[in-house]
Amino acid sequence: VKSETIHGSKLWGGRFVGDTDPVMEKFNASIAYDQRMWDADIRGSKAYVKALEKAKLVTADEMNQILQGLDQISDEWSKGVFVVKPGDEDIHTANERRLKELIDAPAGKLHTGRSRNDQVCLYKIDVLCPGYTHMQRAQPIRWSHWILSHAVALSRDVDQLQEIKKRVNVLPLGSGAIAGTPFDIDRELLRKELGFDDISLNSMDATGQRDFVVEFLFWASLCLTHLSKMAEDLMLYSTKEFSFVTLSDAYSTGSSLMPQKKNADSLELIRSKAGRVFGRCAGFMMTLKGLPSSYNKDLQEDKEAMFDCYDTVHAVLQVTTGVMSTLKVRDLTALSPDMLATDLAYYLVRKGVPFREAHGISGKAVFTAESRNIALNQLTVEDLSAVSPQFESDVSSVWDYRSSVEQYTAPGGTAKSSVAAQVEHMRTWLKKLEQ
Amino acid sequence: VKSETIHGSKLWGGRFVGDTDPVMEKFNASIAYDQRMWDADIRGSKAYVKALEKAKLVTADEMNQILQGLDQISDEWSKGVFVVKPGDEDIHTANERRLKELIDAPAGKLHTGRSRNDQVCLYKIDVLCPGYTHMQRAQPIRWSHWILSHAVALSRDVDQLQEIKKRVNVLPLGSGAIAGTPFDIDRELLRKELGFDDISLNSMDATGQRDFVVEFLFWASLCLTHLSKMAEDLMLYSTKEFSFVTLSDAYSTGSSLMPQKKNADSLELIRSKAGRVFGRCAGFMMTLKGLPSSYNKDLQEDKEAMFDCYDTVHAVLQVTTGVMSTLKVRDLTALSPDMLATDLAYYLVRKGVPFREAHGISGKAVFTAESRNIALNQLTVEDLSAVSPQFESDVSSVWDYRSSVEQYTAPGGTAKSSVAAQVEHMRTWLKKLEQ
Amino acid sequence: VKSETIHGSKLWGGRFVGDTDPVMEKFNASIAYDQRMWDADIRGSKAYVKALEKAKLVTADEMNQILQGLDQISDEWSKGVFVVKPGDEDIHTANERRLKELIDAPAGKLHTGRSRNDQVCLYKIDVLCPGYTHMQRAQPIRWSHWILSHAVALSRDVDQLQEIKKRVNVLPLGSGAIAGTPFDIDRELLRKELGFDDISLNSMDATGQRDFVVEFLFWASLCLTHLSKMAEDLMLYSTKEFSFVTLSDAYSTGSSLMPQKKNADSLELIRSKAGRVFGRCAGFMMTLKGLPSSYNKDLQEDKEAMFDCYDTVHAVLQVTTGVMSTLKVRDLTALSPDMLATDLAYYLVRKGVPFREAHGISGKAVFTAESRNIALNQLTVEDLSAVSPQFESDVSSVWDYRSSVEQYTAPGGTAKSSVAAQVEHMRTWLKKLEQ
Amino acid sequence: VKSETIHGSKLWGGRFVGDTDPVMEKFNASIAYDQRMWDADIRGSKAYVKALEKAKLVTADEMNQILQGLDQISDEWSKGVFVVKPGDEDIHTANERRLKELIDAPAGKLHTGRSRNDQVCLYKIDVLCPGYTHMQRAQPIRWSHWILSHAVALSRDVDQLQEIKKRVNVLPLGSGAIAGTPFDIDRELLRKELGFDDISLNSMDATGQRDFVVEFLFWASLCLTHLSKMAEDLMLYSTKEFSFVTLSDAYSTGSSLMPQKKNADSLELIRSKAGRVFGRCAGFMMTLKGLPSSYNKDLQEDKEAMFDCYDTVHAVLQVTTGVMSTLKVRDLTALSPDMLATDLAYYLVRKGVPFREAHGISGKAVFTAESRNIALNQLTVEDLSAVSPQFESDVSSVWDYRSSVEQYTAPGGTAKSSVAAQVEHMRTWLKKLEQ
Repeated sequence: VKSETIHGSKLWGGRFVGDTDPVMEKFNASIAYDQRMWDADIRGSKAYVKALEKAKLVTADEMNQILQGLDQISDEWSKGVFVVKPGDEDIHTANERRLKELIDAPAGKLHTGRSRNDQVCLYKIDVLCPGYTHMQRAQPIRWSHWILSHAVALSRDVDQLQEIKKRVNVLPLGSGAIAGTPFDIDRELLRKELGFDDISLNSMDATGQRDFVVEFLFWASLCLTHLSKMAEDLMLYSTKEFSFVTLSDAYSTGSSLMPQKKNADSLELIRSKAGRVFGRCAGFMMTLKGLPSSYNKDLQEDKEAMFDCYDTVHAVLQVTTGVMSTLKVRDLTALSPDMLATDLAYYLVRKGVPFREAHGISGKAVFTAESRNIALNQLTVEDLSAVSPQFESDVSSVWDYRSSVEQYTAPGGTAKSSVAAQVEHMRTWLKKLEQ
Repeated sequence: VKSETIHGSKLWGGRFVGDTDPVMEKFNASIAYDQRMWDADIRGSKAYVKALEKAKLVTADEMNQILQGLDQISDEWSKGVFVVKPGDEDIHTANERRLKELIDAPAGKLHTGRSRNDQVCLYKIDVLCPGYTHMQRAQPIRWSHWILSHAVALSRDVDQLQEIKKRVNVLPLGSGAIAGTPFDIDRELLRKELGFDDISLNSMDATGQRDFVVEFLFWASLCLTHLSKMAEDLMLYSTKEFSFVTLSDAYSTGSSLMPQKKNADSLELIRSKAGRVFGRCAGFMMTLKGLPSSYNKDLQEDKEAMFDCYDTVHAVLQVTTGVMSTLKVRDLTALSPDMLATDLAYYLVRKGVPFREAHGISGKAVFTAESRNIALNQLTVEDLSAVSPQFESDVSSVWDYRSSVEQYTAPGGTAKSSVAAQVEHMRTWLKKLEQ
Repeated sequence: VKSETIHGSKLWGGRFVGDTDPVMEKFNASIAYDQRMWDADIRGSKAYVKALEKAKLVTADEMNQILQGLDQISDEWSKGVFVVKPGDEDIHTANERRLKELIDAPAGKLHTGRSRNDQVCLYKIDVLCPGYTHMQRAQPIRWSHWILSHAVALSRDVDQLQEIKKRVNVLPLGSGAIAGTPFDIDRELLRKELGFDDISLNSMDATGQRDFVVEFLFWASLCLTHLSKMAEDLMLYSTKEFSFVTLSDAYSTGSSLMPQKKNADSLELIRSKAGRVFGRCAGFMMTLKGLPSSYNKDLQEDKEAMFDCYDTVHAVLQVTTGVMSTLKVRDLTALSPDMLATDLAYYLVRKGVPFREAHGISGKAVFTAESRNIALNQLTVEDLSAVSPQFESDVSSVWDYRSSVEQYTAPGGTAKSSVAAQVEHMRTWLKKLEQ
Repeated sequence: VKSETIHGSKLWGGRFVGDTDPVMEKFNASIAYDQRMWDADIRGSKAYVKALEKAKLVTADEMNQILQGLDQISDEWSKGVFVVKPGDEDIHTANERRLKELIDAPAGKLHTGRSRNDQVCLYKIDVLCPGYTHMQRAQPIRWSHWILSHAVALSRDVDQLQEIKKRVNVLPLGSGAIAGTPFDIDRELLRKELGFDDISLNSMDATGQRDFVVEFLFWASLCLTHLSKMAEDLMLYSTKEFSFVTLSDAYSTGSSLMPQKKNADSLELIRSKAGRVFGRCAGFMMTLKGLPSSYNKDLQEDKEAMFDCYDTVHAVLQVTTGVMSTLKVRDLTALSPDMLATDLAYYLVRKGVPFREAHGISGKAVFTAESRNIALNQLTVEDLSAVSPQFESDVSSVWDYRSSVEQYTAPGGTAKSSVAAQVEHMRTWLKKLEQ
């Protein structure tokens, strides 16, 4: 259902109170997306300055100036009078620049020990949500654990891109058409002047290979496949049925027919682009297959493919950033006691029951509850001990989602300490990257 | 999470009471799947014989014999003593053969005016469920309307396959290596003897083309993409969150770790195979690209690709048939009043309000209900007339899902008459196909 | 090597005397290509009018008027003063229109019993060239046999396109968003008014399927794979080494570095586009995979893919037509006596030697000739009878390429009668198509 | 045309005197291929020991012992009595082992400063052949330059594989189903025990990602695309028309119909496999697209795809090694004077003529020669000076292929010094790799 405008307002606007959606208006107007994040950015800054004051890195007076400045900026955003200026690279730099205009010197202190990258995922470490396998409720996890699972995939993409860069940044100049150059050209000098990392080793390979394009096309495909996974997750989580994630109105659209609809068009666009980009990769691979050595006109298919993939990845990353920075996630509400069935088995394991047996007993408890159409934690101790005499009154301790996740303290697990360690790992990685 | 067996029972068996799953044990053992359908088949037959008696096509006495026979067969199945015999092509023929053994003559009457294909979707025409667009609740539809949407796609596949057959069934013999045969060979005679529809027109094309393979590979890809869509739907509908479809235990598996899990592995397998098969198509297309005329050894990649695709489509169709015949769908329960927001707008349209305006008003009603955290149909007439004075007490008629679907009587719509017409259309098409 | 222009002339122009190349200047300017064919068209017409006179279908006087008119047109073309006018659909209609301007009435008689499609392949039925398998010289064939092998593949494409059309030309209007339309809309009337062949059967399928796009994308891929095969053939045949085909300068480019180069850029472009188009197909298939039912925003990837494929196929067909109509093929010169080794075996077969044995004997003759570094037909009767006593003096009859091809009279073979029958078959098919 | 055996001999054996073909009999029986290389290996060793004697690294006496030993081994191979023993990893180790058996101590000295990798491309540095662009004759190049162009592409593949290895060799164990492990498991200890480089960072990513498979599948695709390019080159070069490369009989097959045929089936197999492997990659990418997070059964498509690609790459590499080690290339014979047209232009450039002008003049010379149907170097000085007065009698120096290639001394060029530097670069790279 395509959105159309009549008399300056969206056809599907009735139920929408948030701002309109820039994704649909222009898929790749960058700063537009960022603007949706002002609230998140300012709340983050307010929390951070308080932490700085506590750590004696700003004075109480400086903190108050900063807080007042931030409130004013917040006010400007919400009234729609904040003016984005040239040079405002993103929402973070825009707010920082404005704060400096308002309160000058102390503004600079706000960013003590903080990088822009920190500001995004800050508030969600204590939020619990369902973890799914096979699209079925599996175990409670931290929302931040879910975010990190995607971050780790994207960090592999970045690593791979760095590696590709080495192979791309090689000077072909001085290869002639095939045999090399017969004139006394200093290729090493050319390399330095043009900022390449290396010179091509063989003139025939240099003029006839497009590996640097192919590698990039595939890189883009894998990266967008990662984002298609994240988009699919969020689409599920934001259905009325799952309902623990709400996309901001800025990244949703309505229906011109059905007034109640709120569609996650932005996520559908993200999901779809993996196909487009991989199509480019498949097309160019097929073009390359069976070509003889050196230059053939067929190779000129490379540029359009590469530019399209670059642009698409760029746009998708922007929309993804916007979606992630503005969505809301509801703590705990989507969890259900059956997701603790594994914990019920672990309870028995800790009493010495072998896991296979414990698993069977817990399964019977689940079946009992389902048969009686009640939740698993509504089974009484009597009900449970009818299934296995090893259930005792302390079994009630199992029905606590927060304790459940805190069990997973091993590296990579969803306990708070483990998630914090993952965040730290990613920060270190980012810092190394920025050097 | 892979299923494993210990001491003869599944690791994940605790919560399962249905029979074990043949899909996982052997993805393509044919009759095994069909066996899961005995219950559906017998219930269908019992209903049908009653209709026959009412239509005076069998006598009351014959009906009773048939019903008793069917009960006995049902009994045999449930006790696991039913014996499948060679020649039992599928569950329908097996039951029919057994019935004939038990009661002889009257058994034959059961199938008066009934084809096997009718037996599958019989009971679901009155079941209502949510229709989704963008994975978000859209409007109430008939479950049978959903089934038909997939049936129509598959019927296009069948039509296309018939067309391909004409191009496949062409005799290449008598083409020699490239120039033809120099001996006096009657190719027309060969054609007749070998049962081909036509002889190849040009010896060079005949020996060097593999279009008949390529067309089939792509056909398989599109067919499985259709089934991936159906599988994705069912995976959503059978999550705990959507919960209006329940897969039979025969097509589900458990988790060796999480006792409460019931995974729709069968659907995931169906979904995944679209990729596999299209990969074969893409691979062979790439192999063909840029090959010169006539025979090249590269062409020998054709057979493995074709056999793998044939086997995969065959297996997927069997599993799909099994899944569809045994799943349960819950009438009405997954519907929610917000899905009638379009009807609320139509109510106003029928009072003369232009649709665009009606849509906006209905949108405001939705927003009001959401703000107050109540269902749309819990808004009082006063609430509604505050949004628009044109809402009157008869607005309550809107909140009826069955009336809602009955509006869509135009061809292709979800009203009972329209769905029945679609079924009729498909029956006619099937009959033509069988000729 | 990209072509560039300096001071209004091509960088690579030194060795080129033909007209410049429109392919490189604008890949898809239609009439431009056709103009290259004027010479072939006029020569064809001159031959045809003579045949008409002989058949008493035009008088000698009319023939002479027509011949003079054609000569004048030829003159206009070669001097670059022929004026293409609006309505000149292609080179054939342009010449016909001009002839009518020059000599009026008799002009109309030229086309007695001739369709435009006849005019293209007219002159090449007696030309012999090597047939290759595995890219190695196999047997002599007619050039027209090679052309027909590609024509037959393209005729399958046309047949398939006709079939797809039926499935494309179905009216979805009246399907609403998913459930149908609740208003009394006559979809049959809509269909007639909008010129569709059918109305969609199910509203949910109608709004959520894109099979008509997918089928077209794949159709385009297979069609261009066919043309990639033809292009690869021609690239081989027009290398200096094979050298029996010469592309017109209009479809060749030079090198800005190497003055002797004449590159078949047009063929490389044709070959490369199979990849591009299949990439679009692969991309959209991947986008579709696993989408749930009904409309999802992902589907909007369809249009760009389809338009790009349509435009690419259109352009490639034009360039192919231009290349084929203007290339020159050299009769006989590329044939070599080793290509008659099979005939040598057949000679023995006709003397009663079993083929397997005859094949071995002929192989030994080939080996003897190779060892002595002479051509196969330079072996004396004595040499041959040393290999097998069954070779006698009449073996010299084997070394005749024209007799060789005339052996293949069975349907699909390369004998003149068989090729003529293939041409006739294609003509009938074309006529049926035009109805 | 399939090869078949009758009475123990190939159907196509007449013209073949070399050994039969192991490729067709078993595509991947390893040592079988290597055996074809004994001659190349022994000749290389004989040359090397002479160089060692000259460098005073072996005595004249030791040299003679080694030469005699090698001659005996050569004799054994040619008589078919050489016995391959368990532990003979390849042809080099087999010959080395046998030499030690025959002459003991001095045998070990043969390998002073030599690695097995050196032994392959040793003898071809002085061989000249045509370099092609757009499949048309471009400029003379060294055969070794052509080999290096492919070696450089393969070295990029190796570099990329090393990088992928880091991301593959990560321990997922301890991730549980999704949330991690709740028990006190030392993942770092597991990692060490199991020989992984790292532990997975996030349990959800670890269980649901298959990037390590995907990256390998694409790696295999790009690697085989490189080999498809090399195979296509060799297929062209070994046609009768190009004829400067001859495949050994071991890697060729005949035709059961045409006795003169020698088909490069091995090369066609290499070329075709790029499609197969990329199909696996495309298929699995499509399977992954749009999957939600964590484990889904769809992922089980990974293993078959990976094993098939691994096996295919392995087999293709073996066949390629066999083909390359046994083919013969004919020095100079395929070159033609028109390939020196660029040199003719350079001659003028060295006399002060601007290149664009020189190019035009050389082009005119080419045209003159073509018009008169003579070779470019058959134009007299008078002919040439008619085209441009700057041609003088010293122009005859241009017509020397060996001088031509020696112009290209810049890094990456085809001059002997430059090619030697490329070989040295590859050797250093290989040594680093082996560490």
